[in-house]
Amino acid sequence: MTVNRRFTLVARPQGLPRDSDFAMTQEPLPALAEGEFLIRNYYASIDPAIRGWLEPAGNYMPPVPLGDAVRASTIGVVEQSRHPHFAAGQWVMGLNKIEHFSVGRGDGFTQPIDVSAVPSPTAYLSVAGAVGLTAWFGVEDVMQPAAGQTLLVSGAAGAVGSLVGQLAKRRGAHVVGIAGGAEKCARLIHRYGFDAAIDYRGKDVTALSAEIGAACPEGVDFVYENVGGACLDAALLNLAQGALVVICGLISEYNGPPQGARNIWQLLVKTATMRGYLISQYLDRFPEGVAAMARLAGEGAVVYDEHVEDGIDNALPAMLRLFDGSNQGKMILKLA
Amino acid sequence: MTVNRRFTLVARPQGLPRDSDFAMTQEPLPALAEGEFLIRNYYASIDPAIRGWLEPAGNYMPPVPLGDAVRASTIGVVEQSRHPHFAAGQWVMGLNKIEHFSVGRGDGFTQPIDVSAVPSPTAYLSVAGAVGLTAWFGVEDVMQPAAGQTLLVSGAAGAVGSLVGQLAKRRGAHVVGIAGGAEKCARLIHRYGFDAAIDYRGKDVTALSAEIGAACPEGVDFVYENVGGACLDAALLNLAQGALVVICGLISEYNGPPQGARNIWQLLVKTATMRGYLISQYLDRFPEGVAAMARLAGEGAVVYDEHVEDGIDNALPAMLRLFDGSNQGKMILKLA
Repeated sequence: MTVNRRFTLVARPQGLPRDSDFAMTQEPLPALAEGEFLIRNYYASIDPAIRGWLEPAGNYMPPVPLGDAVRASTIGVVEQSRHPHFAAGQWVMGLNKIEHFSVGRGDGFTQPIDVSAVPSPTAYLSVAGAVGLTAWFGVEDVMQPAAGQTLLVSGAAGAVGSLVGQLAKRRGAHVVGIAGGAEKCARLIHRYGFDAAIDYRGKDVTALSAEIGAACPEGVDFVYENVGGACLDAALLNLAQGALVVICGLISEYNGPPQGARNIWQLLVKTATMRGYLISQYLDRFPEGVAAMARLAGEGAVVYDEHVEDGIDNALPAMLRLFDGSNQGKMILKLA
Repeated sequence: MTVNRRFTLVARPQGLPRDSDFAMTQEPLPALAEGEFLIRNYYASIDPAIRGWLEPAGNYMPPVPLGDAVRASTIGVVEQSRHPHFAAGQWVMGLNKIEHFSVGRGDGFTQPIDVSAVPSPTAYLSVAGAVGLTAWFGVEDVMQPAAGQTLLVSGAAGAVGSLVGQLAKRRGAHVVGIAGGAEKCARLIHRYGFDAAIDYRGKDVTALSAEIGAACPEGVDFVYENVGGACLDAALLNLAQGALVVICGLISEYNGPPQGARNIWQLLVKTATMRGYLISQYLDRFPEGVAAMARLAGEGAVVYDEHVEDGIDNALPAMLRLFDGSNQGKMILKLA
């Protein structure tokens, strides 16, 4: 194969991304400069954060330029190398693009991976990839819930949320998840071992707040927020004194004007803290996190789900599943 | 005088408090039990927090019961004592009520004060009282701004805000204040020594954000929020990486449904932290804070303003000035 097919941004989406915002382009394989290597991408990680990178201002990373392929984490195999530490045949993970071939430069975001340590190479895009690291450092460093404390996580059946809940349970916390629909709620209890599950569908802030209160009668010590909107406002009404609200994502806001949170006055009443958390803050500790999550996954100590769509032509449908909630596990796009 | 006149809550306010929510009642002086002392209140502090205490659920303190006098910080003189450490004639400050006489019990909120150390006894309700302590621990403990860092404070011409700005300036920070009207903005610069002042009146979030951006081109390291609403949303759009937003008050929300903040997504983008801050968290360090602020006031190292209304019959008008912004300095009610 000497052609690089690329999922290319041609217009900035207004609201939900549409077909006309993208084009499938073909380019010759890039020539390698000294210190570079060519990666054949096998899988790309389809993450909510991608939506933000399509905005003109980007978010915590530069925007994807019009005419360039869409940024995504990928795993693949080095095909050719002019880099001293990356040999042909080596599996790597990195922040690349949704395209069949990417050029690696061995910077902080690209690292070799040991596919023999995990059930499937895709684990490095799920349980041992960015989502797994997000859960790991969020639980083990940012929150550190103790036995007997209560943790509430929204988007709980999602890739990050399901791991956050399991890691918090391993520390002895009382874990309550919010998810959309009866099937996902059943999965929280029976597959991921949550103590309680709350279905947010069809409920306003008052109703959601009452359900959280019933599941967390002592109040919530930690909120791990992936969704925002009514979930966050209802969580704020149930904070324990001195609670910590970690904003990991606000997926309900990514395709429209921000709703924010009405009930931040509760931060004052409960002398609580709300902080934004990005995994990039832990870049220098990625290897430690990857090793920890790969070990837990290999031992079966945490369970995780992957939803794989096949082929670069399905990049947009895969992305849209994140926003309608129809994915069942970490959304991954198979490229080769 | 053997009668105690009291500013008594008779109905819970809907929105702005009204005359019909209160009654002036008269009661005989209370008899003292062992360990109690009678305080003749000279001045009461009229604070935004009082509005919250009138709500059925209270806020970080129990609600004022219907039929009881309205809670407030006061300073006064011990008139009679059955307490070993409080002798008749001693000046005291404490969390009491808007009434001519209160009963003290020598708990944590009541302490003797040295009126010879300050320009006027009322300093213990302003610069060396709860508002001064709020500024002191907010700047010296919660934020600790360093030279060259930028601090933005809303309600900057208010009792807390004007002191926050001056304390931050003493640490070498670049200090920008938001206030309502040209006169208050001029006072920020010329009387309180702020580096820049922004008049919020007639401006939406976009316009306010642009003015903050012009005054804080490197972004805002610390937001000290007293107001909420558009001020907070505009501040959130100007955060520096890793910024700290301290929620000290949200006075724009106290008389209506909460507006909250739309732009909390910026906490994620800037990996910033927002925390609620109550002076009650520093109860065990009050004497240290009172001493520090009394010394600064005595030396003229900080300037402060007091707006004194005369007579318990003016309790409600004094309270309403907090919400229309017509007070010029710390709002104090003279009782004797």
